[in-house]
Amino acid sequence: MKSTELHRDADGRPAPLRLLVLRPPGQSAVFHVTPERLAAAFARAGVEMREITVETRPDGDPAIADALVRADVLIGADVPTRLLGAARHLGLIQLSSAGIDHLLPLDWLPRHVALTTAKGVHGAKLREWAMMVFLMLHNQIPHFVTAQRRHGWERKLAPSVAGRRALIFGTGGIGRAIAAGAGQLGIEAVGVGRRGGPAAGFDAVLSPAEAETALGTADFVVLALPLTPATRGIADARFFGRMAPGAGFANFGRGDLVDQEALIAALDGGRLGGAVIDVTTPEPLPAGAALWDAPRLIVTPHVSADDPAGHVDRMLDILVENLRRRAAGLPLLNEVDRSHGY
Amino acid sequence: MKSTELHRDADGRPAPLRLLVLRPPGQSAVFHVTPERLAAAFARAGVEMREITVETRPDGDPAIADALVRADVLIGADVPTRLLGAARHLGLIQLSSAGIDHLLPLDWLPRHVALTTAKGVHGAKLREWAMMVFLMLHNQIPHFVTAQRRHGWERKLAPSVAGRRALIFGTGGIGRAIAAGAGQLGIEAVGVGRRGGPAAGFDAVLSPAEAETALGTADFVVLALPLTPATRGIADARFFGRMAPGAGFANFGRGDLVDQEALIAALDGGRLGGAVIDVTTPEPLPAGAALWDAPRLIVTPHVSADDPAGHVDRMLDILVENLRRRAAGLPLLNEVDRSHGY
Repeated sequence: MKSTELHRDADGRPAPLRLLVLRPPGQSAVFHVTPERLAAAFARAGVEMREITVETRPDGDPAIADALVRADVLIGADVPTRLLGAARHLGLIQLSSAGIDHLLPLDWLPRHVALTTAKGVHGAKLREWAMMVFLMLHNQIPHFVTAQRRHGWERKLAPSVAGRRALIFGTGGIGRAIAAGAGQLGIEAVGVGRRGGPAAGFDAVLSPAEAETALGTADFVVLALPLTPATRGIADARFFGRMAPGAGFANFGRGDLVDQEALIAALDGGRLGGAVIDVTTPEPLPAGAALWDAPRLIVTPHVSADDPAGHVDRMLDILVENLRRRAAGLPLLNEVDRSHGY
Repeated sequence: MKSTELHRDADGRPAPLRLLVLRPPGQSAVFHVTPERLAAAFARAGVEMREITVETRPDGDPAIADALVRADVLIGADVPTRLLGAARHLGLIQLSSAGIDHLLPLDWLPRHVALTTAKGVHGAKLREWAMMVFLMLHNQIPHFVTAQRRHGWERKLAPSVAGRRALIFGTGGIGRAIAAGAGQLGIEAVGVGRRGGPAAGFDAVLSPAEAETALGTADFVVLALPLTPATRGIADARFFGRMAPGAGFANFGRGDLVDQEALIAALDGGRLGGAVIDVTTPEPLPAGAALWDAPRLIVTPHVSADDPAGHVDRMLDILVENLRRRAAGLPLLNEVDRSHGY
C-alpha cells in the first residue's frame, strides 16, 4: 500500500498528506515525533510513506497559524483551539495524551474534525506500575518511608498479596492495565464503570451506585477515571470514610479527582493504611503544599504512564491505523465521544 | 500412619515424642507454634498425632534446662547452646529462621543432633517482595521518596522493566524466590553461587570470580547470601565501584553483608541509582544512624520474609516431613551442613 492511498483532496483525488507536529517547550527528545519515527510506523503497518510532509513547530510559535491552514493532520499534547477556524483541511487531531481534560469543554472542536487520544499506549509500563503500587500498599512501604523520615524502626508484617481485592474506578485503557497488573498478582480486580456489567480483564464490574457499598470491602481503591464534571472531586471525605480501615488508596487519573484536604485528613486520622498518588493539583506540586508531608503518603511526579521507549511509537501506530481507517470509511481508534467528553 | 511410628526409643521400640517449643519474648501470636497448628500439620501429612507432647517455654526460662532433658525435638528461633549437654534424648532442632548466623560457629552442636532451618518457607511472600523491589528501583521510587523529603517534584522516566538484568548473589531458597520474582517481570535472573553452573529458576549462574566482571552489566544487584566469614562485608566500596552507574541495589540477606559506610558513599556520590534494604547493622537500626538519611535509600525493618499467615504452617510441614524421613532413615530437608555453616 502507498501512503497516497490514505488521503484524497476535496475532489476525491489522491493528494499529499500534510502533518503538523506541535512540540511542548522543553519536551524530552524521547517523546519527539520525528519523520524517522513516522516512517518506521508506516513501515510497521506495511505502508510506503510517500508524499507526506511533516512540519514541526514548538507550542506557541506564531508560525502555527499559517501551518494550520495547510495541515491535514495535527499531532500534539495541546491544541491551539482559537486558531482552528482557519484550518480548512484539518480532518484529524491525534493527541499524545490519554486524557483530554485540558481541552474540555469540546465546544471548539469543528464537526468535521476527529479528535483521537493516545489511550492504551501506556499498557505495559502502567501494568508494572500498578503491580508495584499494589505491592507497596500491601507491604506498608508508605508507612516505612514515613517512619524512616523520623528514624523509626517500626515493623508491620504482611502475608502474600494474593487473594486481596482491588476496586478500580475506571474500566478504560488505564483501568484495564491496572486490572491486568492485579490479576498477575492474584488480586481480585473489581472495576467500576458507567454501566457496570462484565468487562475484559476484570473479575466483575460494578455501577457507580453499587461501588458505594463495595468501597468498604476493598483492600485497595484505585482511581483510573478521566476528569469530567461528573468525576471531579469524587474521592472526598465521604468516599474515604466509606473505605475499610487500613485500606490503601492510589490515584492514576488526574489530581482533581481527589479532594486533597480530605485525603490528608484520612491519612492523618489513620483511616487509610497508606496512599501512592502519581497526580496532584496543581502540577508540579508547589514546595509549600501540605501533601508533601502527609503521613503514609508517597507522591510521584506524574510518571506512571510515561514509557520513553515505547510511548511515541505506539501513538504513531494508532495514527497510521486511523489514517487507513479514515481512508476506508471505518470507525477510528480512540476517537473522543463528544457527548461524554472522553 | 500413626505418629508413634515416627519415633522409637533407644531400644528401637515405638515411643512418645516430646517436643519443646521455645518462644522469643514478645513474639507475635501469629508466629506461635501451638498444639493446634502442630495437629493441623500432622493432618496435612496424613499422620495421626498420638502420643506427642508439646511443652512451650519462653526463651530464657530457667525451666528450659529440665525440659531439655526430656525433649526429643526442639523448635525455636534461638538455641540454648550451653544447656545442650544434658539433652540426652534430643535428635532434632528445627529453627524458625532460614539463617543460622546467630548460632555460628556450630561447635556447640552435638554430633547426634540434626539442625534444620526454615529455609524456603518464605517463598510466595519473598517473590512478591522481590518483584516490588525490582519495580521500585527501576521506577526510581527511592529517588522520588528522597525528593519528597525536600518537597521536590523531580521527574525521572523509566520504560517497562522487561529485559533488564538482575545479578542475585545467593542461589538458595531466598535467591530462588527472588529469581522467580524477576522472571515474572521478564527480568533476566543471573545468580552467583559457590560453584556457578545451571540452577533452577536462574537464566545463568556465575561463580564468585565471574561475578566480579558481571557486576558492571547488571541493572539490579541483589544480596541473598547467608552471613558467613566468607560473605561478611562482601558489598564494600570496591563492589559498589564496579556496579554500573545508576544501577539499583537491594539486600535481602543480613546487614553485615554490607559495608554501610560504603553504601552511603555510593549513594551520596551518585554511583547508585537507588537502594532498598530490608536488613541493617545493628537491628533495630538506632535513631542516630546515618543510614536513615542517605539519599535514594529506602530502609524497611526486616519484614521482607515474614508472612504471618503462612510462615509457621510451612515450617511445621518441614518438621513433620523430617520426622518421617528420620524414622525412615532418609536425608532431612534443610539440614545444616556443618562444614559450610549454612
